Amino acid sequence: MAGETVLVIGGGPAGLEAARGVADLGYRTVLVEARDHLGGTPIAASYAALTHGMRDAGEVMGEMAAAVTGHPLVDVRLGTRVVACAGAVGEFAVTLERRGARETVAAGAIVVATGFDHFDPGRATQQYGYYQYPDVITLQDAEAMLKAKRFVRPSTGEPPGRVGFIQCVGSRDRHIGNEYCSKVCCGIASKQAIEIRQLLPACRVFIFYIDMRMYGYWENEIYWPAQERYKVAYVKGVVSEITVKGERLLVRGEDTTMNRPMEVPMDVVILSNGMEPSRGTREIAPILGLRQNKYGFVETPHDALDPVATSVPGIFVAGAAAGPKDLDDTIGMAGAAALKAVAAVRRAAGATPAGAVPA
Amino acid sequence: MAGETVLVIGGGPAGLEAARGVADLGYRTVLVEARDHLGGTPIAASYAALTHGMRDAGEVMGEMAAAVTGHPLVDVRLGTRVVACAGAVGEFAVTLERRGARETVAAGAIVVATGFDHFDPGRATQQYGYYQYPDVITLQDAEAMLKAKRFVRPSTGEPPGRVGFIQCVGSRDRHIGNEYCSKVCCGIASKQAIEIRQLLPACRVFIFYIDMRMYGYWENEIYWPAQERYKVAYVKGVVSEITVKGERLLVRGEDTTMNRPMEVPMDVVILSNGMEPSRGTREIAPILGLRQNKYGFVETPHDALDPVATSVPGIFVAGAAAGPKDLDDTIGMAGAAALKAVAAVRRAAGATPAGAVPA
Repeated sequence: MAGETVLVIGGGPAGLEAARGVADLGYRTVLVEARDHLGGTPIAASYAALTHGMRDAGEVMGEMAAAVTGHPLVDVRLGTRVVACAGAVGEFAVTLERRGARETVAAGAIVVATGFDHFDPGRATQQYGYYQYPDVITLQDAEAMLKAKRFVRPSTGEPPGRVGFIQCVGSRDRHIGNEYCSKVCCGIASKQAIEIRQLLPACRVFIFYIDMRMYGYWENEIYWPAQERYKVAYVKGVVSEITVKGERLLVRGEDTTMNRPMEVPMDVVILSNGMEPSRGTREIAPILGLRQNKYGFVETPHDALDPVATSVPGIFVAGAAAGPKDLDDTIGMAGAAALKAVAAVRRAAGATPAGAVPA
Repeated sequence: MAGETVLVIGGGPAGLEAARGVADLGYRTVLVEARDHLGGTPIAASYAALTHGMRDAGEVMGEMAAAVTGHPLVDVRLGTRVVACAGAVGEFAVTLERRGARETVAAGAIVVATGFDHFDPGRATQQYGYYQYPDVITLQDAEAMLKAKRFVRPSTGEPPGRVGFIQCVGSRDRHIGNEYCSKVCCGIASKQAIEIRQLLPACRVFIFYIDMRMYGYWENEIYWPAQERYKVAYVKGVVSEITVKGERLLVRGEDTTMNRPMEVPMDVVILSNGMEPSRGTREIAPILGLRQNKYGFVETPHDALDPVATSVPGIFVAGAAAGPKDLDDTIGMAGAAALKAVAAVRRAAGATPAGAVPA
């Protein structure tokens, strides 16, 4: 029955987990992904190891994708976008487009799992010279090198002797309009710092930060070892600009612990760029009539008490489409969203309290 | 059918949400709570406002409790403890005890939602004088005063002129064995700082911290306003002891931003004590055969990729039983755990992919 189908939009970790969850409850899912492959940002951005557990991103996402592509209740549509939506909970009619061809599918409920985009550090923070200096890179550029197990200074192809991370690039920054904390960059930078030290034991690694925001796994398995075992130097400070001195980059700013100006030479600077609403989120919200918060993420009006409910009954959100999330958050939300979507379908179909949806 | 029942252990936010989730999918739940009331720690510890949204804790927990007590598929057992468990997924036999009387119930899957206990700051951190000075209190003591809308200096009953929070009491502290970050204390202290400033506009409020760990809601709605609108003074520093000078407390330590010793007089000092495994978690883990991590929280062997799975198939965990969580985390995990529990029950009962459990 068409009204018993849940449409899941997005084939990254949140969407894959939500689709599997719906199917594991015995309900049909149509999983729509704009890209031509599943796996979302971890695959599209060439992530190396996923935290926690440092398992290979390709392997993990491959397993998650296989769980849905092999499931008889999941209908995967790649290279497909949602272009229109009508109806309400229990009877949404959603128009999909693939290579110019349109089709309308019926769904009782919808899960939005459109993820995030990485902040473009060239857009508004050009004091860091991302488009000017080849040795100024992003977390994603670094991740791709770490995936290849070869971390070099881009301008020379040689191993760097000094690497510095700059935290909160595009986050906690009122000037560019992103007051929010992107939540994961402290952990990802620290993880990469460890990986660089493992690959290049002679390389010195610095992290320039405002607050190190790590908890649970990140604190115990990443932050303590980064400091103690891997001797990563954490410097509480504000970096105001990056210039060049001789053959090296020069990180200039204020060391707020020592309370003095700092000028630190680096071979590679990694900008810890945060999360922004994805193109998919920006496109889908008006199509589905979802309210967005002032940053463009999908609004969750009940906040912590129902973190997956949106402003539209029967439409739920999972993962970073609702704002910066880590993988824990994303997988938990995906399960919760799948449950709420199936419950909404059941209610709309007039489920009796005692059990199954009437035929 | 007994094997289609999910046993939920714990009647706080995680357990209530999990029980409602299972019931919303049309499956039966037995919800076991050791206390004589539902609502968990927010009720037992007299929380005032729940974040996000600052809604009254009693009202919110009352609504969550009503959703399960009024549900025909949920069987609530108050004043009841789990004392034994046999069997495996699909056919657990769980012995409950209430006032000396025992009963065995059948369950296909189990959700552990036994929450956390607040760290006792008298246990190992007596340099803060919690049991010595009446004006040294905990976040929970402060919460109870804020609930009553009357925040006073306990020794005099008068409004304080200076209040200081000390962060990371019982957290990020290798000396006492709790290396982990408790995740919520930065946010709760900042929320309380705002509430104190609202009640007592003449009172100066300080927060002594290592890192302020706030993201999403906490950063945007709490941390920025606390600094800008409510003029809460955040001091990066390490407090080594609390003594008395004249009629006031004296907070002694090092201001690590100014890089100098500090001695700051206070009328009230609030210890931001973190989370520890609850008595319920410590009791239930060996009964169910669950592995615990080195702190005593329920181990989640798949970490972020399946944050609700435990070491025993068919037994899932939601909320702070698995380690420090905020309310967002807890509610998301509860939904995910409810889904996984129902999926496990369905699989154990030989569900066909296409739908309902065979009768």
